[in-house]
Amino acid sequence: MQIGMIGLGRMGANMVRRLLRAGHQCVVYHRDPAKTQPLVDEGATAIHDLAAWRTALPPPRHVWLMIPAAAVGELIESLIPHLEPGDAIIDGGNSHYRDDLAHAERLRPLGIHLVDCGTSGGVWGLERGYCLMIGGDPEVVARLDPIFAALAPGAGSIPRTAGRSGPLSTAEQGYLHCGPVGAGHFVKMVHNGIEYALMGAYAEGFNLLRHAGIGRAERPRDAETAPLAHPEHYQYELPLAEIAELWRRGSVIASWLLDLTAQALYADPALDRFAGRVADSGEGRWTALAAIESSTPAPLLTTALYERFSSRGEGTFANQLLSALRYQFGGHREQQGG
Amino acid sequence: MQIGMIGLGRMGANMVRRLLRAGHQCVVYHRDPAKTQPLVDEGATAIHDLAAWRTALPPPRHVWLMIPAAAVGELIESLIPHLEPGDAIIDGGNSHYRDDLAHAERLRPLGIHLVDCGTSGGVWGLERGYCLMIGGDPEVVARLDPIFAALAPGAGSIPRTAGRSGPLSTAEQGYLHCGPVGAGHFVKMVHNGIEYALMGAYAEGFNLLRHAGIGRAERPRDAETAPLAHPEHYQYELPLAEIAELWRRGSVIASWLLDLTAQALYADPALDRFAGRVADSGEGRWTALAAIESSTPAPLLTTALYERFSSRGEGTFANQLLSALRYQFGGHREQQGG
Amino acid sequence: MQIGMIGLGRMGANMVRRLLRAGHQCVVYHRDPAKTQPLVDEGATAIHDLAAWRTALPPPRHVWLMIPAAAVGELIESLIPHLEPGDAIIDGGNSHYRDDLAHAERLRPLGIHLVDCGTSGGVWGLERGYCLMIGGDPEVVARLDPIFAALAPGAGSIPRTAGRSGPLSTAEQGYLHCGPVGAGHFVKMVHNGIEYALMGAYAEGFNLLRHAGIGRAERPRDAETAPLAHPEHYQYELPLAEIAELWRRGSVIASWLLDLTAQALYADPALDRFAGRVADSGEGRWTALAAIESSTPAPLLTTALYERFSSRGEGTFANQLLSALRYQFGGHREQQGG
Amino acid sequence: MQIGMIGLGRMGANMVRRLLRAGHQCVVYHRDPAKTQPLVDEGATAIHDLAAWRTALPPPRHVWLMIPAAAVGELIESLIPHLEPGDAIIDGGNSHYRDDLAHAERLRPLGIHLVDCGTSGGVWGLERGYCLMIGGDPEVVARLDPIFAALAPGAGSIPRTAGRSGPLSTAEQGYLHCGPVGAGHFVKMVHNGIEYALMGAYAEGFNLLRHAGIGRAERPRDAETAPLAHPEHYQYELPLAEIAELWRRGSVIASWLLDLTAQALYADPALDRFAGRVADSGEGRWTALAAIESSTPAPLLTTALYERFSSRGEGTFANQLLSALRYQFGGHREQQGG
Repeated sequence: MQIGMIGLGRMGANMVRRLLRAGHQCVVYHRDPAKTQPLVDEGATAIHDLAAWRTALPPPRHVWLMIPAAAVGELIESLIPHLEPGDAIIDGGNSHYRDDLAHAERLRPLGIHLVDCGTSGGVWGLERGYCLMIGGDPEVVARLDPIFAALAPGAGSIPRTAGRSGPLSTAEQGYLHCGPVGAGHFVKMVHNGIEYALMGAYAEGFNLLRHAGIGRAERPRDAETAPLAHPEHYQYELPLAEIAELWRRGSVIASWLLDLTAQALYADPALDRFAGRVADSGEGRWTALAAIESSTPAPLLTTALYERFSSRGEGTFANQLLSALRYQFGGHREQQGG
Repeated sequence: MQIGMIGLGRMGANMVRRLLRAGHQCVVYHRDPAKTQPLVDEGATAIHDLAAWRTALPPPRHVWLMIPAAAVGELIESLIPHLEPGDAIIDGGNSHYRDDLAHAERLRPLGIHLVDCGTSGGVWGLERGYCLMIGGDPEVVARLDPIFAALAPGAGSIPRTAGRSGPLSTAEQGYLHCGPVGAGHFVKMVHNGIEYALMGAYAEGFNLLRHAGIGRAERPRDAETAPLAHPEHYQYELPLAEIAELWRRGSVIASWLLDLTAQALYADPALDRFAGRVADSGEGRWTALAAIESSTPAPLLTTALYERFSSRGEGTFANQLLSALRYQFGGHREQQGG
Repeated sequence: MQIGMIGLGRMGANMVRRLLRAGHQCVVYHRDPAKTQPLVDEGATAIHDLAAWRTALPPPRHVWLMIPAAAVGELIESLIPHLEPGDAIIDGGNSHYRDDLAHAERLRPLGIHLVDCGTSGGVWGLERGYCLMIGGDPEVVARLDPIFAALAPGAGSIPRTAGRSGPLSTAEQGYLHCGPVGAGHFVKMVHNGIEYALMGAYAEGFNLLRHAGIGRAERPRDAETAPLAHPEHYQYELPLAEIAELWRRGSVIASWLLDLTAQALYADPALDRFAGRVADSGEGRWTALAAIESSTPAPLLTTALYERFSSRGEGTFANQLLSALRYQFGGHREQQGG
Repeated sequence: MQIGMIGLGRMGANMVRRLLRAGHQCVVYHRDPAKTQPLVDEGATAIHDLAAWRTALPPPRHVWLMIPAAAVGELIESLIPHLEPGDAIIDGGNSHYRDDLAHAERLRPLGIHLVDCGTSGGVWGLERGYCLMIGGDPEVVARLDPIFAALAPGAGSIPRTAGRSGPLSTAEQGYLHCGPVGAGHFVKMVHNGIEYALMGAYAEGFNLLRHAGIGRAERPRDAETAPLAHPEHYQYELPLAEIAELWRRGSVIASWLLDLTAQALYADPALDRFAGRVADSGEGRWTALAAIESSTPAPLLTTALYERFSSRGEGTFANQLLSALRYQFGGHREQQGG
């Protein structure tokens, strides 16, 4: 099957490679031929002008976007003159599902379809395949099935869920049509919200393991410092990287994120390469927004997000006010760091 | 190697079976011969009197306890008269690591060793093996190595962590000597604390997916009810069981707990068998206590615990007070459920 | 000064009374004369047709809305034909500040001003006065000063903040022009977000005081129930209503919400009149949404909101999934309530 | 009435002053006469040797301790030889109520009473009076009534709670016998736990007000940064000190902590004197520990505590791990601060 790709960054380029390896024909777009050359070397066709889409692909055309969420709206506008009724744009990036709804409304009168596809897999997707969460009109999603199947991981060696039998569902192969436009990015959004909290759970746990020896340090004994009642309870020096490794086997908390934790801690046990300013790239926020709007309690997902904000100093003024209040009512002066 | 087992419940009995299959000799204890018979049928030896330990096992004896945490102290007292210097008690249950410290102090003058072993694996351990987190004196832990190796899952088919080479560490085989007495249960405690938050993360996420259609319901329009600004954003009906299945493949949040989620939702999509009163059995609390005592922020782990308390109605009085306050300052009356 | 009022519910009617008592002339609107009669009896003029505004008030007209947020947009549309350039609409209800921005944009080309006024005071405002948070064009806000001054509590007996001297600022009299359109409702929104967390803090605290005697109850001793290590630490039966009363005097946590808590607990110590299904009426959510969008950590404000959602059963499915997972990995069955 | 005081820091010295002004006789202890001289100048008697208690006070003696929690146990041991059956020690500091239980058990066979008295009021107590939460045997508490009454604020100008009539309860005068030994510090502990969350609520709210203008700043537009969908919604520059002042009057969130907030923000709007490293001095932790042990959900109280830990860098390793994981699965590099 033929498909176009706009956005040749980390994700987009590897998705093209995975499609080429599966025998699909890929037309890749970039203004700068230097950016398309590596993929041309691997079998793709390149275009450098959006107007070329009309001839580069046979109708109905399918153009996959793999670009930052903030740039999608503008790009769709630039694409419109070069597409025809029946064509489809697949937004495979991390767009907010509400933008999908707006984009679909914009495209509907033109007869152009929007398919939204949440894509998980990161830098590992080329090798492991991409987990695809898809929203859109059933016919269009159906005609893209060979593309989704090629990008997805397939059933692989993962054991089948107890009770399932018969032919594999597409979910069992790693892609799923979740519902009408926006459903794919909605599911991807919640996926990433969960991801934030899973990551936070491991991070808190390993940080606690790292504090297991605080009883060995001297502590001031004054009215400003909470006493450590039983320093003898905090005398351990735990081998964090080995513990992460251990939990990968037979434990209830084994996961792919734990595999990565084991890798990170083995490579750099003190994690000195990182300052701990944790970015968030949109979906975690949108998940929290959706939880609030839909009256769904999501304290873990949201707290994980807030911890990232705090890691970047966004809570500093709040903390200054706390210190100021302590000074006001108790004459407490701030202690120096340590 | 020969080992004794006290506690023939779900976990203990299966551990005996796994040891027998690996060629070890197991002496199982229960006052009631009916309880030991099934394991005798599979090759174990049974005793029905604690005094029999002295002859049932050659010195140095190793007696493994697999009993509720609250019963360990008493049982150790009953065992003491029947053990000798050099013998070792392995507490494989879910004891608080502080109790290990107290038990070890009690046993030290008697020359009896305490080894603590946090055990993860649940009802799946017989088949998958048990992930073992071990604390205690190095010599005693070393002489128990064949037992730990037999209980642990082994390296299995799990890919080796990038960068590791040479002989497998014990962690790579699923067991680890984490440090002196208590270290094993400390690590297991944090393991379970992480587990609570991981579970909570998936639970919140799937609950949010389930709320994706709330825009289809009618809502009252009055000063008491927060308006849903954009009902058109919440019109989905998402296939939860398929989504769980999907995420098992190629997604960042794949995990063993997600495998179980897929299984639970496939078997009973509405989860009607469960009322949602979630128990907690100790380690989650101890993790939160340790976080607080050691000044380690752990909002996710602790909030996951509190959500369990709330699920059992422990927050009801707080909520009644909130309604009472709303009535006091705004004349707001409680709305009926729905 | 002359002013119109639309919305004669709890809040609106009392505001009219407070204005009348201060010597202002109030024109009150309701289709149904029975609704306006009580205020006419107290000195107001009534109209029953929106078209009457043009003659009922001299230009520039000021019409104050005290209606549910969800109804404001429509009402503004109905008002437009009956107002002239230079007139002003004051939205004194609990509108989202973003709606203010949209409403102002709608009115601007017509030369009609929008002033947004967040109003705190609830059923107590008639007696205590209303705390007013105001946004809008400086000239229009300035010409409404006599109205704001009359509604506000005034300086009263509250001690002046250390360091302040000279003439009282309007804030010291209980009203403040916070900035351009929307600023008033923005500040009111955050005010209510804070309120949710303050209320939640007291609620959690009193609930904990109420749990101070749990050591007196029998608890099961099994692997499903977290042991209470020291029942002797939880043997108190604390006099909640007296404690609330006590804290009103000289304590760091004295507040108006505590005054109300003391009142609620004195009237009904067990709070049996309330089931604990806590409503939320918009601003708490908007505060959390603003926190997320602006990268501001607000875990307390947001968690307080989520606790309200949970109190209404919105988290039940999440809890069912937790119980289902516990059953899956550990064979744990749910315990019955108690 | 005669009473002894040990601990002449900020709190203790002012309490002596308040007692002297009420006509009580105070014996103050310090090894160093320079420390007792100021109080002697105001009418107190001084002793410099613990052995002098026996003659300095008539039996039954009452010695009030106002010293750091961590020092109480030792001091009680030093006092024991110098007291007689019937005497009483009042621990007015911030001891953990569990230590009260232990101290009382130590003193009981000696016939010496322990009274625990949680004291709120900080540097303001001399002027405003101290809010006293008392635990102990009823007879001993009763004979100390004149002391408690003198230290407490009295009914003052605070309006009586609706429904109360007849003689004032002691709670209405600012002191309360809450129950047996430990009850006073239990109630004080929860008081402080509430205080942490109240403070955190204001801090989060004012921080959010301060972020109301973030839409005016330029933001990078890349895959690493969550887009700010509507910068036009965040264009305000809000007058924080005036807002705090405003809310003191007629608002639902008026409180003494808000009074202090107004004072802090007026004196130093940017709070530049404080770095935002917030100390915690024990009770907040103990409250959270009690919540966990007693199965009481307390997410706000506990999260407020954790935010203090985080403000001191205790969560940094967790954040480093989050950045490391983002790098592992997505190749994301940390952005520089700003």
